[in-house]
Amino acid sequence: MTSGTRIPDSHPRAASLRVRERMKEAVEAGLVHPTGLIAHGRGEAFDYLLGERTPPEAKAAVAEAARRIRAARQPVLSLNGNTVALAAAACVEVQRAWPALRLEVNLFHRSEERVARLIAAVEAAGAPRGSVLGRHPDFRIPRLASDRARCAKAGIGASDVVLVPLEDGDRAQALKAMGKTVLTVDLNPLSRTALAADVTVVDELSRALPNIREEVLRLRGKPANCRRVIERFDNRKNRAAVLRAIDARLGALARKR
Amino acid sequence: MTSGTRIPDSHPRAASLRVRERMKEAVEAGLVHPTGLIAHGRGEAFDYLLGERTPPEAKAAVAEAARRIRAARQPVLSLNGNTVALAAAACVEVQRAWPALRLEVNLFHRSEERVARLIAAVEAAGAPRGSVLGRHPDFRIPRLASDRARCAKAGIGASDVVLVPLEDGDRAQALKAMGKTVLTVDLNPLSRTALAADVTVVDELSRALPNIREEVLRLRGKPANCRRVIERFDNRKNRAAVLRAIDARLGALARKR
Repeated sequence: MTSGTRIPDSHPRAASLRVRERMKEAVEAGLVHPTGLIAHGRGEAFDYLLGERTPPEAKAAVAEAARRIRAARQPVLSLNGNTVALAAAACVEVQRAWPALRLEVNLFHRSEERVARLIAAVEAAGAPRGSVLGRHPDFRIPRLASDRARCAKAGIGASDVVLVPLEDGDRAQALKAMGKTVLTVDLNPLSRTALAADVTVVDELSRALPNIREEVLRLRGKPANCRRVIERFDNRKNRAAVLRAIDARLGALARKR
Repeated sequence: MTSGTRIPDSHPRAASLRVRERMKEAVEAGLVHPTGLIAHGRGEAFDYLLGERTPPEAKAAVAEAARRIRAARQPVLSLNGNTVALAAAACVEVQRAWPALRLEVNLFHRSEERVARLIAAVEAAGAPRGSVLGRHPDFRIPRLASDRARCAKAGIGASDVVLVPLEDGDRAQALKAMGKTVLTVDLNPLSRTALAADVTVVDELSRALPNIREEVLRLRGKPANCRRVIERFDNRKNRAAVLRAIDARLGALARKR
């Protein structure tokens, strides 16, 4: 296989090709499971339909997600291979903006080696040594088969609010069934995760995380009475609005091409 | 990394998960380049939007593609890693239905080893030994940088009609610039390949190929005066109709969810 393919700046899809190279290298480094590349491709297609920019609805969802994190007793940001490969530094920045937020590596295709590598990658991106949970699971998410139920009691186990970007539907549903508030970032507004979550940010992860960070920082200086606002946000309506925006864009493209 | 993950029949996405496993194994076997998994994921997303079934427009495009193959002096079916991994046997069946059609392996990420492996896989799927071109390129597609320009004079070089499923846009455009008729199977009706091709079958490859085979077989028993029909097919209108169908489906999903 080739590696280190050179991508000219002039290529119409240069940015996207560079991210693909990075994802491929993350597989080679044992950070991302090969099927994570397929998930990345699905995301690419939905991002293309979104016009590869943050829709206004995602900004509203980000504001809501930040309020939920701020109001949480124990918020956790759950990290998988794709999340770390795409946006490790941005995850660390969100954690710095809201120090109560714990980072925890939790994988669908778990291996001790991959967990260790991912934690090392998050530490290399700036997380304090020893701060990232996930290496010694001592808690199981009920009603969830296989290894991905294994997590840290001090992290996802005890959490009331979990931000699970790029998640698979089963786990999002199992976390909901535990009574937790589930926040997600997912480019597919119709995925099972998108449907199960309390707040679905339909946006590309490396665009969404800096927005979450900014909102969390903004809330730090404000009074904590955000309960009323939380109840006004309607995730279903927000997702439906994104779908209509994609729909309108497709319609316009169909007329143009 | 895990391998041989078991997928229960009851899983709502069992068929799709099994294809993913097969693609992952094809990477491990050196048949598919890792970034081929990303392309597969993009296809999955568009197939989801299509409702994972053949739209009526794809049937019209298949009929047109079969007519073009039938009217060709030297038709070629160009094979890459994803095509072989997803549908090697179906490619061989199309070739059997129209013996003038040559099969040729032609890769974006070319390595001699991968070409040899892919040819072996197509032979294992039923192609006569030595019949698949691509191992000894003696022709270059003009105006196309890098190794993917390299092909067989007796195959793509001399062809007048090329069926290039799951192709990248640059090569489809370069083949068009050579004056060849380009047929493609692509789930993204807005991809550069879909836009460049003379006939774009917007469908999943393993659904489209048996349809092409059936049409080609049907045409074998009929007179060859298909010129008139060819001129009536409008690829742009066909693609626009698929886009409208996706659009309508998204609209319905937005209302339902």
